[in-house]
Amino acid sequence: MARLQRAFFLFCIPGLLAAVGARETEGQWCKAGHSLSLGISVFPGFEPLDVFGPLEVFYALSYHRNVSLAVIAKEKGLVSSRPPFKTGSKNATNGYENALGPRIEATHSFSEAPVLDVLLVPGGRGTSALEQANDTSVEDFIKSTFGQLDFLLSVCTGAVSLAKAGVLSGRRATTNKSVWKAATNHGKNVTWVPTARWVEDGNIWTSSGVSAGIDMTYAFLRRLYGDGDEILKSVMNEIEYAPHTKADWDPFSVVHKVPGANTMASLADSTTPVGYDENS
Amino acid sequence: MARLQRAFFLFCIPGLLAAVGARETEGQWCKAGHSLSLGISVFPGFEPLDVFGPLEVFYALSYHRNVSLAVIAKEKGLVSSRPPFKTGSKNATNGYENALGPRIEATHSFSEAPVLDVLLVPGGRGTSALEQANDTSVEDFIKSTFGQLDFLLSVCTGAVSLAKAGVLSGRRATTNKSVWKAATNHGKNVTWVPTARWVEDGNIWTSSGVSAGIDMTYAFLRRLYGDGDEILKSVMNEIEYAPHTKADWDPFSVVHKVPGANTMASLADSTTPVGYDENS
Repeated sequence: MARLQRAFFLFCIPGLLAAVGARETEGQWCKAGHSLSLGISVFPGFEPLDVFGPLEVFYALSYHRNVSLAVIAKEKGLVSSRPPFKTGSKNATNGYENALGPRIEATHSFSEAPVLDVLLVPGGRGTSALEQANDTSVEDFIKSTFGQLDFLLSVCTGAVSLAKAGVLSGRRATTNKSVWKAATNHGKNVTWVPTARWVEDGNIWTSSGVSAGIDMTYAFLRRLYGDGDEILKSVMNEIEYAPHTKADWDPFSVVHKVPGANTMASLADSTTPVGYDENS
Repeated sequence: MARLQRAFFLFCIPGLLAAVGARETEGQWCKAGHSLSLGISVFPGFEPLDVFGPLEVFYALSYHRNVSLAVIAKEKGLVSSRPPFKTGSKNATNGYENALGPRIEATHSFSEAPVLDVLLVPGGRGTSALEQANDTSVEDFIKSTFGQLDFLLSVCTGAVSLAKAGVLSGRRATTNKSVWKAATNHGKNVTWVPTARWVEDGNIWTSSGVSAGIDMTYAFLRRLYGDGDEILKSVMNEIEYAPHTKADWDPFSVVHKVPGANTMASLADSTTPVGYDENS
């Protein structure tokens, strides 16, 4: 059990109840001085914004609250966004070999990861390469660490790794809408929600593709700290992001023709700065 | 003159005219097979999403079109998002020393940068540290490379570096709204636009804070490739981002009480997936 969870039981039972699904009781999360230990798993071919969308929110938060970060991969060191396909394995022009490959530093290997309160699992085209290589390191890490986490979050096809790890069994989840069919082919006993910007089920949060991770992260932190939390409002306005605050706003399920998508809902969403609208 | 500009003159004069401000003629940018050479300058304490918001769009584009990337800093190697303030230089709790510091790889030093078509200059709290250290490397690089660029883009307080480099003289520009007063104190003969998600002035584009860079990048690429460009639409929908498409939507100028902000405009903006609304 991670430190946050211990703090929950010691000080924050009402917050915990809210956090694990008692939606009626908005989470007034423990504001004590403990640090929130965030881990982000990465792999070759991770989607940049899957990582840096949510991370930006935690980064901005870290100027106001204690947050620590571990970027965790199979091995420590540089990890590229370019999927590890070799020339010729896809079409020769504009295949994966031409993709941009910014590299970020993994600070920890999976085997040396610190104790985490929150693990964020991004997706990206590299998940297919891991599968082809029978590389199960990401889902193995999720499987081994899940019981110690307070919260597990995925962005985009990161949900595929959660499904493979078995932690979505009996849960509702969502994933990227442009590769819906392939992504939802994984996992057993998962209720995949076709129209959802994000899905919260207990202590697991899953978001739709790429930029949806930012909206999920705001919703998650709002659940943690409470609707009225001034620091969180301030952070969102510092980064000048007007979040989508409705979990069921998902026009991309319609754009990408996801089976079962709610085609009756409006594709448009009106957003405002946090704290300046009754919905935010 | 960078390769894109040469290609302009050879093949794409109508596109160039559109690109440099002939708004009536929407830019049908040259779709020939040349590569777009993108550079992103970084420094200790860069804002993560200033870099990875725009970069995500170029990254997704790189699966469809030839784009190359150079991440450029004073020295090659790892660059952290944590500003280089020492313990005690700010308030002891939650000061810069506690900020998250994900590190990315600078592939080139300023002195070894490749020929660029587009240079993107992010901001971040580290700009103050550069100033305190009399480190002018970022603006020196902008100054020396500007004449060879086709386009210069800044996000957030990246505009401060542009102003210091002198390239905003006689131009309209915008910057981060939460630190407006300090940021706009730089540069001579700059018309700072208080209410603007982004500002286009000739071949220089400047955006408001952090997440505004994504919207500017979409608008920029739309100018390059044209409103009807199917690849760009597809890319935006792949990353499931519904962009703000009005350059004058800027509720954060009101939130942060920027002098001269348009307080009469709506703080809300309705967004839809690209291609699914007449405004997008």
